[in-house]
Amino acid sequence: MLGNCMTNVREKGPLVHNITNYVTVNDVANILLACGASPIMSDEPEDVEDITSICGGLNINIGTLNKRSIEGMFLAGRKANELGHVLLLDPVGAGASALRTDTAVRLMEELRFDVIRGNISEIKTLALGSGTTKGVDADIADAVTEESLDGAVAFAKDFAKKAGCIAAITGAIDLVSDGEQCYVIRNGRPEMGRITGTGCQLSGMMTAFVTANPENKLPAAAAAVCAMGLAGELGYARMQEGDGNSTYRNRIIDAVYHMDAAVLEKGAKYEVR
Amino acid sequence: MLGNCMTNVREKGPLVHNITNYVTVNDVANILLACGASPIMSDEPEDVEDITSICGGLNINIGTLNKRSIEGMFLAGRKANELGHVLLLDPVGAGASALRTDTAVRLMEELRFDVIRGNISEIKTLALGSGTTKGVDADIADAVTEESLDGAVAFAKDFAKKAGCIAAITGAIDLVSDGEQCYVIRNGRPEMGRITGTGCQLSGMMTAFVTANPENKLPAAAAAVCAMGLAGELGYARMQEGDGNSTYRNRIIDAVYHMDAAVLEKGAKYEVR
Amino acid sequence: MLGNCMTNVREKGPLVHNITNYVTVNDVANILLACGASPIMSDEPEDVEDITSICGGLNINIGTLNKRSIEGMFLAGRKANELGHVLLLDPVGAGASALRTDTAVRLMEELRFDVIRGNISEIKTLALGSGTTKGVDADIADAVTEESLDGAVAFAKDFAKKAGCIAAITGAIDLVSDGEQCYVIRNGRPEMGRITGTGCQLSGMMTAFVTANPENKLPAAAAAVCAMGLAGELGYARMQEGDGNSTYRNRIIDAVYHMDAAVLEKGAKYEVR
Repeated sequence: MLGNCMTNVREKGPLVHNITNYVTVNDVANILLACGASPIMSDEPEDVEDITSICGGLNINIGTLNKRSIEGMFLAGRKANELGHVLLLDPVGAGASALRTDTAVRLMEELRFDVIRGNISEIKTLALGSGTTKGVDADIADAVTEESLDGAVAFAKDFAKKAGCIAAITGAIDLVSDGEQCYVIRNGRPEMGRITGTGCQLSGMMTAFVTANPENKLPAAAAAVCAMGLAGELGYARMQEGDGNSTYRNRIIDAVYHMDAAVLEKGAKYEVR
Repeated sequence: MLGNCMTNVREKGPLVHNITNYVTVNDVANILLACGASPIMSDEPEDVEDITSICGGLNINIGTLNKRSIEGMFLAGRKANELGHVLLLDPVGAGASALRTDTAVRLMEELRFDVIRGNISEIKTLALGSGTTKGVDADIADAVTEESLDGAVAFAKDFAKKAGCIAAITGAIDLVSDGEQCYVIRNGRPEMGRITGTGCQLSGMMTAFVTANPENKLPAAAAAVCAMGLAGELGYARMQEGDGNSTYRNRIIDAVYHMDAAVLEKGAKYEVR
Repeated sequence: MLGNCMTNVREKGPLVHNITNYVTVNDVANILLACGASPIMSDEPEDVEDITSICGGLNINIGTLNKRSIEGMFLAGRKANELGHVLLLDPVGAGASALRTDTAVRLMEELRFDVIRGNISEIKTLALGSGTTKGVDADIADAVTEESLDGAVAFAKDFAKKAGCIAAITGAIDLVSDGEQCYVIRNGRPEMGRITGTGCQLSGMMTAFVTANPENKLPAAAAAVCAMGLAGELGYARMQEGDGNSTYRNRIIDAVYHMDAAVLEKGAKYEVR
């Protein structure tokens, strides 16, 4: 199933509109091309509705938000909803500033997202801020580990159910839930955290996967997580002496470029709870 | 001749002002440095006239345009015209949104460009929008191939003549025309399309080539196209097992870094019609 | 001492807020991660105060300034001053436009910087514009070489004393002075000038080094300069036939990633005057 999701991306080549931060945008574009999709970037309010109209999915990332791009996020998001396009939110830094938290919560309230993808801290912030939880339980730790896994899975399901979308919570262990099922994914390497933007790249790629698999959004989102983590493993295996995080960044995107359904099926490490 | 154009870039080291998108801007800067030129980026209306005044050429790319940067494009463009600097337009996404089409057409109307460089779809949009054609002929295909070449060459010449500048239409086969002659260029590799920004990089480099060769603008623009395509070929030859589009991006810029007149002369594949 | 400064960065992992240009921002983020620090980027006036509050240092780089980000620089800078955070200015292009010169001078006047880092031309512009010098002496050459070194060291000390901060003047020979002492550093390679953003990367890394070494700001700033230059040497030693400036960029960041106190101590080439 996960392999099929990747094949559909390569065969359909979805066009993905990204309103994303200027830090990692180049890598987002290249990983979208690597997986067989096509990227377009536009954040100007007067431009975004036209651009999103010709795409299949919209990836909203608030990493370097500003007032102009926030307006663009709402306009593009409403248009994407109107057209039934796939819509993903990456609430970068929610919890780190009032503007980021408020913007992410307002986006959740005013738009229908197919997926919200962030780390546990960001998703907890959204759970609290959007009233989808009555306070975040103390037993939801700040990192998803084997020890905290049961509580985290329950939290992911609960958040997904109340937010009405797929929740993708990524970290050492990744969780992808639609409220009923929860994929628990153990691909990836800790060194990926030393590269800027692996999360942003995943959000872009996940938008493409979900767009190309409208009937299977949950496995598609999980497939994107597995593909990113597996690329981290395969890219790391190609590292040579002296290679560091900058070269690792290239090798991860390269690994996505060469990944096919069979490689993904074989390398994906997950269970469904 | 084409080799000389590159030598002049390396010897004169032109300073190029780029008002360009934030997706591929880093690669544009590095390829300008690779070919012997120097980049400066500035898009703030209050800053652009001073910056363009100390440069030799101005590269306007509308890839992630916004209202502020559009104002900067007009201010910088008028100053560049006033000073007789080389001016290039890369109408990224013309045809994909009203704002992009309108901005590109208005830029064409209000400024005198030395070169307009885009893909066939963008240039057809400009031909239609600027009234330089009475409707785009049905026989101008959406890709320049050996089959559609004759019509495309005629279109390139016609567009260049009516727009009063060099038209560089890039794709599987590249066309560079000043209205009289048309370089038909067959360098490059299809895998270049899987890297974000090879077109943006070419526009930056082409601005440098034309700036360094004011008496030979047409061959200079053609030389930049050949150099980019040849770098794609040379870079591809250095790809190792497992390398993908991210590494390919580096190898293309690296190939420009090492390219000299002799390599370009030997590797350029073109005919003049 | 310099090695200890690097160890402190790796052990403390300072969070650095960067208001920087969109040309080189990705490399700035990756080099901060490579040296053991963490980057956050934010330039929206409504966002910057919250973001800088959770960081330890703030790196202000005016490379692609605009009116919005300039407002963000002042707001964030005042907050950083209020909180006693490390504050660094990289006056990219001061002297190249009135807006850049004026902005840099106003930042110097209204904020207390710990470090100002630029090339000799930019620092001379600031010396003149801020009234910290009565005209720049004719004997301060436009490049710091062995021949012009004595005058340049005197200038660096004088600028640092009058500006009330550390001055880091980088070029073929680098100078880092607090007004009393001046580190004269001879690490680095000329080929680094063919990569966009090595200066921006250094400013980011220097902010991390000074933040992690509050009791030893001068040696910490010097250590960052040595680390960057040494990474340029180590990265160059790993270049293979055909590698150019794009690959070199990766290798420099990779070299920082693997650098530790012992490597830095052994490779740093400096004297204190």
